[in-house]
Amino acid sequence: MHVIHSIAEMRNWANLEKMAGKKVGFVPTMGYLHKGHLELMRFAREHCDVLVASIFVNPTQFGPGEDYGSYPRDLERDMELAGWAKVDCLFLPEPGDIYPASYRTFVEVEGLSTGLCGDFRPDHFRGVATVVAKLFNIVAPDEAFFGEKDYQQLVVIRKMAEDLNMPVKVTGFPTVREADGLAMSSRNTYLSEDEHLEALAIHRALQRVRDLVGEGERESAKVLAAIQETLAESPSLVSEYIAIVDAATLQPVARVVGKVLVALAVRIGKARLIDNVVVEA
Amino acid sequence: MHVIHSIAEMRNWANLEKMAGKKVGFVPTMGYLHKGHLELMRFAREHCDVLVASIFVNPTQFGPGEDYGSYPRDLERDMELAGWAKVDCLFLPEPGDIYPASYRTFVEVEGLSTGLCGDFRPDHFRGVATVVAKLFNIVAPDEAFFGEKDYQQLVVIRKMAEDLNMPVKVTGFPTVREADGLAMSSRNTYLSEDEHLEALAIHRALQRVRDLVGEGERESAKVLAAIQETLAESPSLVSEYIAIVDAATLQPVARVVGKVLVALAVRIGKARLIDNVVVEA
Repeated sequence: MHVIHSIAEMRNWANLEKMAGKKVGFVPTMGYLHKGHLELMRFAREHCDVLVASIFVNPTQFGPGEDYGSYPRDLERDMELAGWAKVDCLFLPEPGDIYPASYRTFVEVEGLSTGLCGDFRPDHFRGVATVVAKLFNIVAPDEAFFGEKDYQQLVVIRKMAEDLNMPVKVTGFPTVREADGLAMSSRNTYLSEDEHLEALAIHRALQRVRDLVGEGERESAKVLAAIQETLAESPSLVSEYIAIVDAATLQPVARVVGKVLVALAVRIGKARLIDNVVVEA
Repeated sequence: MHVIHSIAEMRNWANLEKMAGKKVGFVPTMGYLHKGHLELMRFAREHCDVLVASIFVNPTQFGPGEDYGSYPRDLERDMELAGWAKVDCLFLPEPGDIYPASYRTFVEVEGLSTGLCGDFRPDHFRGVATVVAKLFNIVAPDEAFFGEKDYQQLVVIRKMAEDLNMPVKVTGFPTVREADGLAMSSRNTYLSEDEHLEALAIHRALQRVRDLVGEGERESAKVLAAIQETLAESPSLVSEYIAIVDAATLQPVARVVGKVLVALAVRIGKARLIDNVVVEA
């Protein structure tokens, strides 16, 4: 596995692969890799000729008071895991190279960056869109892969790539879960064992959504009530939002018709956890 | 000369040229080509193997009440002139393809998009940066060329390309003038003969700036007073701004030291005219 720190070297490496006719896949991450990342990487690796992954804890997507400083990092372990996942090239840019002191350009996907997480993390998706635009321009991938756990992020990035005519296909990959149902996340490391157990109510709530919709329930209000009821089984969970929205526009829907995203964010202890399910009715 | 309307076809054409090892140059325009465009194109053509030019009157860079609807258009004449200027491929995208109904992504270069023209045209440079980002992603040029008459635009685009790691070199080209000194502009067509004569005070004022600085004047206030005095010779000219700024940061400077941009915008009749001079002291 090649390990590259310099932007120019990364661009050059990817260019050479493309000139050799290789299809370049790309998985951008913030590191502290877990099984979700690794399955995503293995999937990506099967869909391209060479796979680039990046690790960069992106400061512009963290708000004031958020966990940028304390976000978990373990580069040595990440490098071992990326190699195991058959990553061909690991890109580890320096913060000062990505955002030099004179940096001032931002990409904003209007409408999709507000609502859901955007209402609680005002500049988050602007930071995500900006860093992904930069990474796309450096790596020039043919296809880029993102986990569906961060569903709003996937929708924002797909829309950005489409709107700005970026020559890259954006592909989502289903959320990977622990055996007990908790969605894999680098931030799960913030949970105590008790909190972890309480957090399982999230997956139970989303499974109940799937069951209810499967049985024919179409009223968003009733689906919402069922989620709230299930989350209430875990007294330490404080829900930030529970949303039932069109999966493409992320606009709230009163009835579960077409492709609908049911997404939520909760706080528990030091952690903020998000999860979702997409249902089609 | 190839004439291409479709985004996919344009991308494909440029890709094939690049794969054949050709250096692709690019001159984006809003059409109604004049000698300024043509000299810029001929310069660009000498610095690349194949030259793409685009004509697209970009709605997102016009404010409400500005001249988007009445902006001069003459496609037949433009095609003839582009051919004469040795453009290899003329890209004429459709507004509905560039901005479909669901469009919502914008690129903003903060700091450089305010001040000067940005204070009078609030979303102008956001629209410019966005459409140029899109065109860069479609044409994938190795080098793109912009006139220095729109100096703030050049600075914004160069910064955007640098900040977003776009693999393109952004090159400025000196303002082309009529024999009488008026900077070439598609909007000069709005001027009556009398207004054209009055507008010559702009060039006289900027020549006086060059002379004053050449003679050792360093006080921005004195340079500004000289410009105002010269513009006052033309009673129909209403100045929007006169600015003396650092040529890279576009921040006002009290003294003319280093590379300094002296820029102004005036209104005369139906026209809004801009011009500038860069002095080094």
